[in-house]
Amino acid sequence: MFSVSVRDHTMIAHSLRGEVFGPAQRLHGATYVVDATFRRATLDADGIVVDIGRAAEALRAILADLGYRNLDDEAAFAGMNTTTEALARVIADRLADHARAGELGDGARELDGLVVTLRESHVAWASYERPL
Amino acid sequence: MFSVSVRDHTMIAHSLRGEVFGPAQRLHGATYVVDATFRRATLDADGIVVDIGRAAEALRAILADLGYRNLDDEAAFAGMNTTTEALARVIADRLADHARAGELGDGARELDGLVVTLRESHVAWASYERPL
Amino acid sequence: MFSVSVRDHTMIAHSLRGEVFGPAQRLHGATYVVDATFRRATLDADGIVVDIGRAAEALRAILADLGYRNLDDEAAFAGMNTTTEALARVIADRLADHARAGELGDGARELDGLVVTLRESHVAWASYERPL
Amino acid sequence: MFSVSVRDHTMIAHSLRGEVFGPAQRLHGATYVVDATFRRATLDADGIVVDIGRAAEALRAILADLGYRNLDDEAAFAGMNTTTEALARVIADRLADHARAGELGDGARELDGLVVTLRESHVAWASYERPL
Amino acid sequence: MFSVSVRDHTMIAHSLRGEVFGPAQRLHGATYVVDATFRRATLDADGIVVDIGRAAEALRAILADLGYRNLDDEAAFAGMNTTTEALARVIADRLADHARAGELGDGARELDGLVVTLRESHVAWASYERPL
Amino acid sequence: MFSVSVRDHTMIAHSLRGEVFGPAQRLHGATYVVDATFRRATLDADGIVVDIGRAAEALRAILADLGYRNLDDEAAFAGMNTTTEALARVIADRLADHARAGELGDGARELDGLVVTLRESHVAWASYERPL
Repeated sequence: MFSVSVRDHTMIAHSLRGEVFGPAQRLHGATYVVDATFRRATLDADGIVVDIGRAAEALRAILADLGYRNLDDEAAFAGMNTTTEALARVIADRLADHARAGELGDGARELDGLVVTLRESHVAWASYERPL
Repeated sequence: MFSVSVRDHTMIAHSLRGEVFGPAQRLHGATYVVDATFRRATLDADGIVVDIGRAAEALRAILADLGYRNLDDEAAFAGMNTTTEALARVIADRLADHARAGELGDGARELDGLVVTLRESHVAWASYERPL
Repeated sequence: MFSVSVRDHTMIAHSLRGEVFGPAQRLHGATYVVDATFRRATLDADGIVVDIGRAAEALRAILADLGYRNLDDEAAFAGMNTTTEALARVIADRLADHARAGELGDGARELDGLVVTLRESHVAWASYERPL
Repeated sequence: MFSVSVRDHTMIAHSLRGEVFGPAQRLHGATYVVDATFRRATLDADGIVVDIGRAAEALRAILADLGYRNLDDEAAFAGMNTTTEALARVIADRLADHARAGELGDGARELDGLVVTLRESHVAWASYERPL
Repeated sequence: MFSVSVRDHTMIAHSLRGEVFGPAQRLHGATYVVDATFRRATLDADGIVVDIGRAAEALRAILADLGYRNLDDEAAFAGMNTTTEALARVIADRLADHARAGELGDGARELDGLVVTLRESHVAWASYERPL
Repeated sequence: MFSVSVRDHTMIAHSLRGEVFGPAQRLHGATYVVDATFRRATLDADGIVVDIGRAAEALRAILADLGYRNLDDEAAFAGMNTTTEALARVIADRLADHARAGELGDGARELDGLVVTLRESHVAWASYERPL
């Protein structure tokens, strides 16, 4: 199995609902350094998993759409806790939509899966892995 | 599949028995930077894999129990080579005990697995992965 | 010249005023991974620059006081742009207060200077350096 | 499942054929920071996955054989695009040859698999994973 | 003293002339992960050292101009060894030109100095520091 | 001012004397990831600060001499607390001896200074800087 990964980041404000979150129930924020990993059993005719330029652009577009916002005010997240875990899934699902729409190139239709990891600090991170 | 990871560290002395270890047969030491990863198929009602505060506390307690010691003198490791690989299992098994005892919260009973990685330098590390 | 550094982090929300900030004029947030460096020409009788345990505690207290907050609502920052650069100075000045108050130990009165670095992502950071 | 990883690097020149590569179709170069991960279900009698000294030496030999060269001129890569993904497989396959030849020690015959990751920058990397 | 730093990268081919370089006398290549640090004694009216967006753009333009090339064929480097140290100076001098030309904003004329660091691997890097 | 840096590591056991060290008064150990930085105002005729191969070899020899040992038993450290700060000076002084003895090449006699940084974990490190 092959994989290719690209890294970018986004900076957001939000608050979390639930006693388990302690002081993170207050409005605060985070930088998420985001790694998107694309998996594929075999390489394409060019010898790649995915066009890394297009993959990086897709990730950048998704993160720009989230970034420099207060997620508490975004309709897309109404009624949902925007935990690191949950945002990893949101980003992975949006990347999957880009892949299926052909925006990562035709070869991206051969991708087997995706992993998205959000690093919220030097001591904590979360991932979501899904098939494609 | 979701995962959440936390990082901490511990500093120990030990020696290793066996010709394969060369100069590491002498009493020496290591800083282990330890990553504990908790895996779960679905998020709980709060939108998390595990209470990250409790997970970090459990890891800290386990590492404090090991740290600032000469492992050669610890009864828990009598007759065992305290290699990086072997210590990764010890820490993973102790985290599993915490999870089963409910110390990571009730939701932690839904965890599917654990990975513990010990980084002993910028060029070497070892992991142990187990189900829960 | 000797130095000792400790790392911790804090997560905040804020917005920045001024056209130069583009989309960062909107309410958003950041994780700051914070390195505090203490400088001293000679070591004390114990062979250290500063009690690293106390230094880490002082940094943790200062960051906890900032963290999980919307800095736009904090009286301490009224009328000030809470840029990464400006926050580096705030944290350095608060550490200097701790040092002068003897909270880093008596030896900390011999410190020559401080550097505080705030990493806001994997591709951007800011520092403030001051004498003590 | 246990694993042990070692890190080393190599510096090469090459060019890539295909429109998808844009400016990377020109002769350029890369530093690859290479992580080799060895997997095994159980530890050997010494408590290890593999002799880490021998594993590091094998990786170093393989990387020295690639390094400080223009891969476009190497017979071994004639007719092949030396993408990061493709080179990850080349290195993994050569490590597998070393393992089977007994050069990682007798115990290495019990290895279950290998992962090789090539980091080409702080924002892009590729991996190849195979059984042994 | 304040500073702000941004990170980017470039990938080049080159060879080095001189016995001291051993196998690096052959045509090979490198990824340089480049940190540009801008220093200034006081913050401007917006509370910043430099417009970080413009600084990042200037660095990106300079690195794009170098990247995906064989430096041995570039007129700009004729008769010069393109060592990591020497390239750090080239990039710092070009950033200084951008600053003086006003491309980093008017405030950049208040900058006191620049440091450029090129990381060529996980175990080696070089810097050049100059006034502005 | 130019600089070149190389990274290596060493693993030792030791204990520290003094109440300020708390549990680190017990026999324990550390991995030190060691960065050695060589500074020079101008480049030599080859366009370098120092022969990086020789510099890396000198660092490796110094660290091998310390490593896989219990520093409490070494005559060289009798009566001295082997704190991270103190060891940074020991390593810097030994590198200075190598430079003066011509072991880093003739050009190394033009070096202006040295910095040695010991990273003892992901959250703590110490440096010593000296002229040459």
